[in-house]
Amino acid sequence: MKTRITRLFGIQHPIMCGGMMWLAKPELCAAISNAGALGNLTSGNYESGDALREAIHRTRQLTSNPFGVNITLLPSVRITRELHEDYFQVCCEERVGAIEISGAPLDKYLGPDSVGQAKEAGVKLIHKVGSVKHAKHAEEAGYDAVIAAGFEEGGHPLGDDVTTMLLTPRICDSVGIPVFTAGGIADGRSMAAAMVLGAEGVMMASRFIATTECLAHPNIKEELVRRHQNDTTMI
Amino acid sequence: MKTRITRLFGIQHPIMCGGMMWLAKPELCAAISNAGALGNLTSGNYESGDALREAIHRTRQLTSNPFGVNITLLPSVRITRELHEDYFQVCCEERVGAIEISGAPLDKYLGPDSVGQAKEAGVKLIHKVGSVKHAKHAEEAGYDAVIAAGFEEGGHPLGDDVTTMLLTPRICDSVGIPVFTAGGIADGRSMAAAMVLGAEGVMMASRFIATTECLAHPNIKEELVRRHQNDTTMI
Repeated sequence: MKTRITRLFGIQHPIMCGGMMWLAKPELCAAISNAGALGNLTSGNYESGDALREAIHRTRQLTSNPFGVNITLLPSVRITRELHEDYFQVCCEERVGAIEISGAPLDKYLGPDSVGQAKEAGVKLIHKVGSVKHAKHAEEAGYDAVIAAGFEEGGHPLGDDVTTMLLTPRICDSVGIPVFTAGGIADGRSMAAAMVLGAEGVMMASRFIATTECLAHPNIKEELVRRHQNDTTMI
Repeated sequence: MKTRITRLFGIQHPIMCGGMMWLAKPELCAAISNAGALGNLTSGNYESGDALREAIHRTRQLTSNPFGVNITLLPSVRITRELHEDYFQVCCEERVGAIEISGAPLDKYLGPDSVGQAKEAGVKLIHKVGSVKHAKHAEEAGYDAVIAAGFEEGGHPLGDDVTTMLLTPRICDSVGIPVFTAGGIADGRSMAAAMVLGAEGVMMASRFIATTECLAHPNIKEELVRRHQNDTTMI
């Protein structure tokens, strides 16, 4: 399937893995990229820019396909502003396929020049948003794509309850850049539903936990497979 | 578009109007049925079985197409158990196209014989459910169809937050009778997404308020059209 998203990121399938702390590491990232989707390295796994750089190199040993790096720009005790800046610099220096930002928009957090810096390095920018307003801001700031993250998504950016079914068409109608949908997407049916709603790709994360390449404990994988639609706990 | 739902109810489009207190009355019901979908008369609008019967007769003056009656089997100060029984008897005597039940299942509330009584009268039974468990019960009790009502739906039957995107495929995989989807469906895109997820029809209610035939005040209709995805208030 070809969409603007497959062309933009040079991938075969319009699917991206979302950021997952302690799980989205080189092995899983590379496996997803090798399968033709866009793998994800979560920067927050790493205590320094150099450690992230090592992980990028390790991933490149495992795949020659593009992959992205997730940077969550939210206040954190562990991850300082300086570390956020280091993550970003490393991604640009290493010319990774994409940076997926969640939290504050890059232009507001690191300044408008950061968007241009990523573009010059050939790094595509994606922002995960939970509202039309934030999608429009990302487009105006120069992002290449947005992720419409419904209430179902583990890292839904807002404190509301606007679902994937409602948010996707609203965002697709509001911006010209391509839209991923995230939240409640877990198989071909839900991916097809997202595309019918106007998305050109999907982001999944939990769906990739129950895989050989994910480092989660086998008991967690089994428990995930066992659970039903009422078993998600909001925290 | 033909599905098991269009054949089951003898309608042209696999769309049904949901129950809406004080709004789902003969004029709106008939307009929807005349347009080829399944209109809905909400029994709770009426203070007696005879008043419901009059509304059924009035609707039949306005349309010769099938329509349904919504009966909400939940504890109510205004609507007694006797009135619930009257509503049901009138629907069977008048051989309406369908009864859409929400709340308690018909077999548990009025007894298992009630299902057979509806079937003998040629009245199709639909139950609105919010979980796989309740969908399976409806099928076992002899219902003809279920409505998978996601969290987005105004009358979502449970206190959870399982959305249309998640609930629809789970229920479609769990029962053999046809499934409507309700909750967040408002246009062709979202209807198509529901069908992709496995539904054979959709139920919409709020979507029909901003119509000439709905009795809501024009200011309410304008306000509904003006509002955005974050403007829904949960009560």
